[in-house]
Parts: sequence; structure tokens; C-alpha cells
Amino acid sequence: MSNPALVEVIRGNVTESLHRGSIAIVDSSGKTVWSIGDVDAPVFPRSAIKALQALPVVESGAADALDLTDAEVALACASHNGEEVHANAARVVLLKAGLTEDDLECGPQWPQRMEDAAKLILEDETPCGLHNNCSGKHAAFLGLAKVMGVQTKGYVDGAHPVQQEIRAAVEQMTGAVMSEDACGVDGCSIPTYAAPLKNFAKAFAAFGTGEGLERLRAEACERIFDACINDPYMVAGAGRLCTTVMEGFRGRVFVKTGAEGVFCASIPELGFGIALKCDDGATRASDVMMATILEVMLELNDDEARLLDGLVNPPILTRRGMQAGCIRPRQEFLAALKSALP
Amino acid sequence: MSNPALVEVIRGNVTESLHRGSIAIVDSSGKTVWSIGDVDAPVFPRSAIKALQALPVVESGAADALDLTDAEVALACASHNGEEVHANAARVVLLKAGLTEDDLECGPQWPQRMEDAAKLILEDETPCGLHNNCSGKHAAFLGLAKVMGVQTKGYVDGAHPVQQEIRAAVEQMTGAVMSEDACGVDGCSIPTYAAPLKNFAKAFAAFGTGEGLERLRAEACERIFDACINDPYMVAGAGRLCTTVMEGFRGRVFVKTGAEGVFCASIPELGFGIALKCDDGATRASDVMMATILEVMLELNDDEARLLDGLVNPPILTRRGMQAGCIRPRQEFLAALKSALP
Repeated sequence: MSNPALVEVIRGNVTESLHRGSIAIVDSSGKTVWSIGDVDAPVFPRSAIKALQALPVVESGAADALDLTDAEVALACASHNGEEVHANAARVVLLKAGLTEDDLECGPQWPQRMEDAAKLILEDETPCGLHNNCSGKHAAFLGLAKVMGVQTKGYVDGAHPVQQEIRAAVEQMTGAVMSEDACGVDGCSIPTYAAPLKNFAKAFAAFGTGEGLERLRAEACERIFDACINDPYMVAGAGRLCTTVMEGFRGRVFVKTGAEGVFCASIPELGFGIALKCDDGATRASDVMMATILEVMLELNDDEARLLDGLVNPPILTRRGMQAGCIRPRQEFLAALKSALP
Repeated sequence: MSNPALVEVIRGNVTESLHRGSIAIVDSSGKTVWSIGDVDAPVFPRSAIKALQALPVVESGAADALDLTDAEVALACASHNGEEVHANAARVVLLKAGLTEDDLECGPQWPQRMEDAAKLILEDETPCGLHNNCSGKHAAFLGLAKVMGVQTKGYVDGAHPVQQEIRAAVEQMTGAVMSEDACGVDGCSIPTYAAPLKNFAKAFAAFGTGEGLERLRAEACERIFDACINDPYMVAGAGRLCTTVMEGFRGRVFVKTGAEGVFCASIPELGFGIALKCDDGATRASDVMMATILEVMLELNDDEARLLDGLVNPPILTRRGMQAGCIRPRQEFLAALKSALP
């Protein structure tokens, strides 16, 4: 793999670090609109496909049976900060399923932000599964298991009916086989299957448009898409790109990050799905890659342009808050991306 | 820059992420013993050269005038965790100079580990400059300013006499010009000058052996080297590679990490200095690169071999603590490095 350098970290006048990556932009027919780097290599999508993993929760009727709100469906697609609002919402989903945090098999995680960690510390608490960034997804999986009438214990194992349903939905959406020899265990203990970026991009083109999907599937996609757009704070939280962009773009885009520098998006007005990975796994670079794509591909109003500007060129600050440099897309990446415009 | 991939992140059977980098191993005459990637490109050494930046503190007589202990000299070379022991030691250095934490210009930083952050939170405190990972270096700089009889305010500026002394010492040790157009501001607000890795490697060959240095300089290097070896906990802290390796190797190696994936080392018994950088700035990869070099270059006893094994192949764990993969040196990197052995 020798993907091109797409993002650079600048300090003073010197390029301090470089991030390589690959990007696929695909329409809902599966046609690649634009790509850079190797988009055929298998990539673990990690949390970037939580919205696809949520499909069986909706399609099975579990979301209705449990009376899940938009916020709770959005939480099922979240890699959240573990703020009080996220942990509490996950607790409510579990309650609706007749379960508790003890049923979660994702493991504990400290909240992302110090101020949320401090709340736990001051209450003499330690983090539990509810604070795990994946707790909403796990609560939804547990709800699905209950509604399917299968045992909840072991719902994270690849052979469990819940994971089999998810695997089938992801295979249908991506058109890729989720094979055992490309299977890894995610940080939250569920299986993650590596497949080409172009397949994940195709899935998100369909997810955002409904094109080429059966009615039930298209309706489930729309419900999940709308839930995330209506309550983007539940998808991530304070200071996070997914929340900031979905709040600011009011339905124009769906974006979802994943660990190790993956990012997926849907742009319904263009009919595009996007999947990208930073080779080295850096979120700071996958964030800039995604913000750059949105800036180049979309016609922006002033608010949207301002919002993206800070995400395309985030400053590097000293600990006294002075700017020492920035992270930015490389000129070659910008030029190549602009050449893709009609 | 297209440096080779040296470290890979494995999940299941799939390579999930890749880290590229460059490495220079140089002897004290400046001869390159082995290198990989571009070692002529300018690289910001960041905190990896704190031991060189400490030279004027010792050579000026400031360390003696302030009656600095080994622990306090080691702290001057540290990127520490901001544990209580580190913050308190920095406070004592400032007291010895007749100063306080208010004189620090490095800015505040939360302690690295949640348990140390929790102590502050429970005491209703917020972090100050003493908790900044660079506080020991800054306290020493302030002590140097006092002993030099220059104003302490503004000691972080490139034009301040303290920074001029440091710049001259680093230029002499590296044989490279620290030029204004390759100058950036470090996270702790002092200047950092980009220069080739091979020059930093040369400096650390001399630092560890004293070869080719004037007597005063050689004595200062020895004092700083010994201080770090005698109190490696002050150089980093719990769970940190620099501390673990210097504790375990009892004087055989000096190692010091820096931000954005740089790492420098001295191996006196071989007469080698080492400088490396991970292209993308990832510490997880620069750690594996350095541990791999030590494993290949040194004859190890059982304890040393065991210690390095965990650092060369660190596991990737789920949040329930199960192994999901590992980080490891690539076969090509190992083979190339082994080919350098006599």
C-alpha cells in the first residue's frame, strides 16, 4: 500500500508530519465518481458503519416495539463522548428492553472529555459500559435480541443471531462479502469485517438516497438518517466533527467517523456515498479529509463555509493557546479533488 | 517524502494501519552506521533533545549554583506524566531559584494519567504549569536565567539569552545550523529548530560517549546521562517507555521521546546515537521503532529481552481487556535492520 499524502501538519514554515490515505466517492449504482489511493484494499470500517449496523434494529420492528425515539436511534449510530446525556439515554434504551447496564458487553471507558470524567470522579464513580462510546449501539443490539426472542448473553459474538442479522445487512448494503478471514474484533468486542472502501461508499450512497433499495430497507435508512440529522448531539457530542457538521448542514449530509482514521458519509443531494481511511489511523487527518471533501463538493452558504473552514484547517496551539501551526489538506489533494467536479 | 512503512497495526489477520518513518544510527565521528528513509530532511526534534537543551544549565554552573540533585537534572530532560512527584520536584527547582510556578511560561496541562488528574479534581484544583510535561525543563531554564543574571520573563523567546545558549549548544552537538526559517514554536512555547535526523543522531552518539567533545561539555553530558539513568522515573513516569527502558537497562541506553513521533537514544557500549521520526507523528509507532532497534542492536539478558518483547509487540486490547491485535515492526524493517549488524 502506498497511498498519496493527503494531509500535512505544519509548524512554523515546516511540514512536520504527513498523513496518507485513500478515498472513494461512489454513487448509488456503485459507480466510482472519484477516488484516490487504493480503494480495493480491505479496510476495517469500525464505527463508521454504525448506521448500517442499526438497520436490523429498525427493520425487525425492534425500534418500534421498544418505542425508540429519534434520539435513541441516533444514539444507536453513535461514537459518543460518554457525556451524562449519552450515558443516560443508553440506560433508558436498556430499561425499555427490560435490561440494565450489567447486560452490556462493550466494556467500560472513561468519558472523552475531562469535565465529564470529573463528574464521575467527584461522585466517586468509575466509568461503566454506559460511558463506552458504543453504548448506544450495544443497547440497541440488546433490544434487538430481546425482540428477536434470542438470548441476550453473548450478543457480541459473531455467531449470535444479532450479529448474523447485522452481517447480512452490511453485506447487502455494500455488495461485499464479510468473510471470516477478514474478520477482526472491534474495541467494543463485536466483529468488524474488512472490505474495500468503494463498497462502503456504495452503501452510504444508497443509505442517503434510498436508491436501489427495497421499500422496507429504504424506509429504515431514511428513519436512521433522519434520526441522526434531528439529534446529531447524540451521535458524538461537544466539540466533535460529526455533531458539528450534521448540526450545521441541517440534513444536507450524514457523516460518521470510526476508529483508526476511517470516515463515511452520505450526500443525498449529489447522490454520493463517501468512505475514506487515513493509512496510519489518525483521526486528526481523517477529520480534515472529510471536511475538505465537503468543502470542495458542496455549494456552501456563509455559515456552512465558516463552519468547514475551521475543520479543514484546524490550528495547532501551544499550551498557552497561541497558534504554532495547522493541519491542512495538501495542495495535490485539493487539486485532484477539484478536478473531479463537473 | 516517501519513507518506508516500518510499523504495522494488526487486527485479526488484517493489517489495519501502517506507519512510515526514517531512522539514522550514527557514530560519534558523524559516520552513518545505518539509516532507512530520508535522514537529510529537516525534522523538528521537539522534546527528544531535552537532554541537549539541558547542557547550558550544567555547563554554566547553574546546576551547581542551584544545588540541583540528580532527580532534578533528570526532570530537566523530562516529558513527564505530570504526576505529583514530577510537579513537586519542578516546584522545588523553582524554589531553589527563588521563583514560583507563576514564572513558568509553558502553560498548563492535565496530567497524562486519569488517576493523577483525579487527584487534582478531588482537591478542586486545575492543572498549572507544574503539571505541564515540560515543567522540569522550564524550571531549569528559569534557574539558568537567574544564575546568568538576565531577566526571567520572556525566557521562552528565541531572542532571550537562555534560548540563545541552548541554540548554540544544540548547534555544536549536532553540527547543524538551527536556522530561523526552520524554526517553529513547540507546544511549551520555546523555539524548536528542524534539522536532519542524522545530525541529531550524531549529537546523541557524542552525548552518550563524550567522544569528540571538549572536557567541560563531555562532563556535562556525563552528568546529565547519569542523572537520567539514576532517576528514570523523573524523565517520564508510570507506564512510559523512556522510564521502563532506562530502568531495565541500568545505564546501557539513554532514550528520550518527543512529540510528533520523534525519538532519540544513545547506546554508549556501541558508540551509537539514534534519531528517528514516524512520518505521521504517532507515538505508538515511534515507540515500537525504538524498542525494535534496541532489541536488534543489543545483546540482551533474559530480563532485558522480556522487557523489550512487550514494547516491540504491544497488544491492542478491547475495552474488556481481550487481545484484538498488536502493533509490530514490519518484516522488511526487521530484515533491513538485521543486515546492519556486523
